[in-house]
Amino acid sequence: MSHESDGDQRDVRRKYALNELRRTQLRSNPAMQFKLWMDESLATGQLDATAMSLATVNAMGAPSVRIVLLKHYKAHKFVWYTDYRSQKGNELAVNPQASVLFYWRELERQIRISGTVEKIAQHESAAYFGSRPRDSQLSAAASTQSHVIESRDILAERVLQLQFSDDVVKPEDWGGYQLNAHEYEFWQGRVSRLHDRFRYRLVEGVWLVERLQP
Amino acid sequence: MSHESDGDQRDVRRKYALNELRRTQLRSNPAMQFKLWMDESLATGQLDATAMSLATVNAMGAPSVRIVLLKHYKAHKFVWYTDYRSQKGNELAVNPQASVLFYWRELERQIRISGTVEKIAQHESAAYFGSRPRDSQLSAAASTQSHVIESRDILAERVLQLQFSDDVVKPEDWGGYQLNAHEYEFWQGRVSRLHDRFRYRLVEGVWLVERLQP
Repeated sequence: MSHESDGDQRDVRRKYALNELRRTQLRSNPAMQFKLWMDESLATGQLDATAMSLATVNAMGAPSVRIVLLKHYKAHKFVWYTDYRSQKGNELAVNPQASVLFYWRELERQIRISGTVEKIAQHESAAYFGSRPRDSQLSAAASTQSHVIESRDILAERVLQLQFSDDVVKPEDWGGYQLNAHEYEFWQGRVSRLHDRFRYRLVEGVWLVERLQP
Repeated sequence: MSHESDGDQRDVRRKYALNELRRTQLRSNPAMQFKLWMDESLATGQLDATAMSLATVNAMGAPSVRIVLLKHYKAHKFVWYTDYRSQKGNELAVNPQASVLFYWRELERQIRISGTVEKIAQHESAAYFGSRPRDSQLSAAASTQSHVIESRDILAERVLQLQFSDDVVKPEDWGGYQLNAHEYEFWQGRVSRLHDRFRYRLVEGVWLVERLQP
C-alpha cells in the first residue's frame, strides 16, 4: 500500500560511459593520483569539486557523515576547518579514525581516503581564519556548531554584537583537522556496472596497489 | 616547501544564497520532509539526485564511506541494493549502525539520516534484480564486490561465459539493505555561513525537532 511519504526511484540509472582507469595509467604514489584527479575536477569548473563527505564514529560505534570542504593537502595529509565542539569534533576526540569521499559525478569518479585525524597547529588555524571573509569569521565566532539553539534570531543577535569589534579573533575551539591517509581508493564508473576500482594500501612503508571487483 | 602533489583550495568558497529553512516550513514527520526535498531535487533534473554517501564502520571502529543509489523508501525505511560480500556488507554484518548523506549542491541542501540496517526479504531483492537491465545482472553475477582481482580481463571473461545463459538468476549474496531511520538532519545553506539546520530525533515514539547552530 502506497503512502504519501513513499518514493520509488528503481528506474533511475546511470550509464557511466565517459572514461576508464587502467593500471598503466595509475601513478605509483596515490597522493599524485589524487592531485591529478582533483586538478581535472577543478578544471571542469563544476560546483564543489572540493566538497567531501566526512565520516566519523561516535563512542557507541555509530557513524555520521556530512559535507566539509577540503582546504589544502600535502603528502597524504588532507586539511579542513571546523568548530572543534561540533558533532564531528566530539566524535574525533573519542575516535580519531575517519574516512572521506569525493564524488565527482560529472567525471563519474569517486575517491575514498581513510586514515587517522589530528588537529593542526593553532597558529596555522589562526592564519587561515585571518584570511577568511569577515562574515564567515563573525558566524564562526557567534556559533557553537551542532549545539541546539532556540531560534535563528538569537544567533543573528550575537553576530550583530560582534560586528562592533574591529578584528574578529579566531575562537579557541575553531581550527583545522588533518587526515593522515593510509588507504585510498580510486573509482571510475564504467558501462554495464563494470567499474574500474583501484585500492592503495600502505604496507610496510610501500603503497600496494590492487584492483577491486566492481 | 611546495611539492608536486600539494594542493591549495583555501580560496574556493560558496555563497549559499538560494533559500532558507524556517521552523514553520517543516513537516512534523521527517519522512514527509524527506520526500518533499527529494521530489524537489528530482524535479530540478540534476544528475544523481538519489546518490547518497553511505557510512559504515568496521570491527576496528574505523568508518568507510561510498556512494550508493537510493532505490525506494517508505515510512522511515530507505532501501538500496548491493553485494552482501562487499566491504559495506562485511561491515554491516558486524555493526548494523549506518548513516547516509544526500548532498544536493544545486539546491544548497544536505539531508543526513542515521539508523540501523537490516537485509530486506530475498523475494523482494529477487523482484528488483529481475527488473534490472541484463548487463547489470551479468556484472552482478560475475563480480564479488570489493574483493581483489588480478585484471579486468578475468572479469570480462566471466561476463562472457554468463552471456550464454537465458536468464541470469539473482546471486544468493546480492540483495537489498534497509536503513531504519531514528535521526534526520535537514541542512539549508545560507549566506555568511549562517546555515539553517534542523534535527529530528525519535524520543519515546515522538519526533523531537531542534534547530542546530551552523
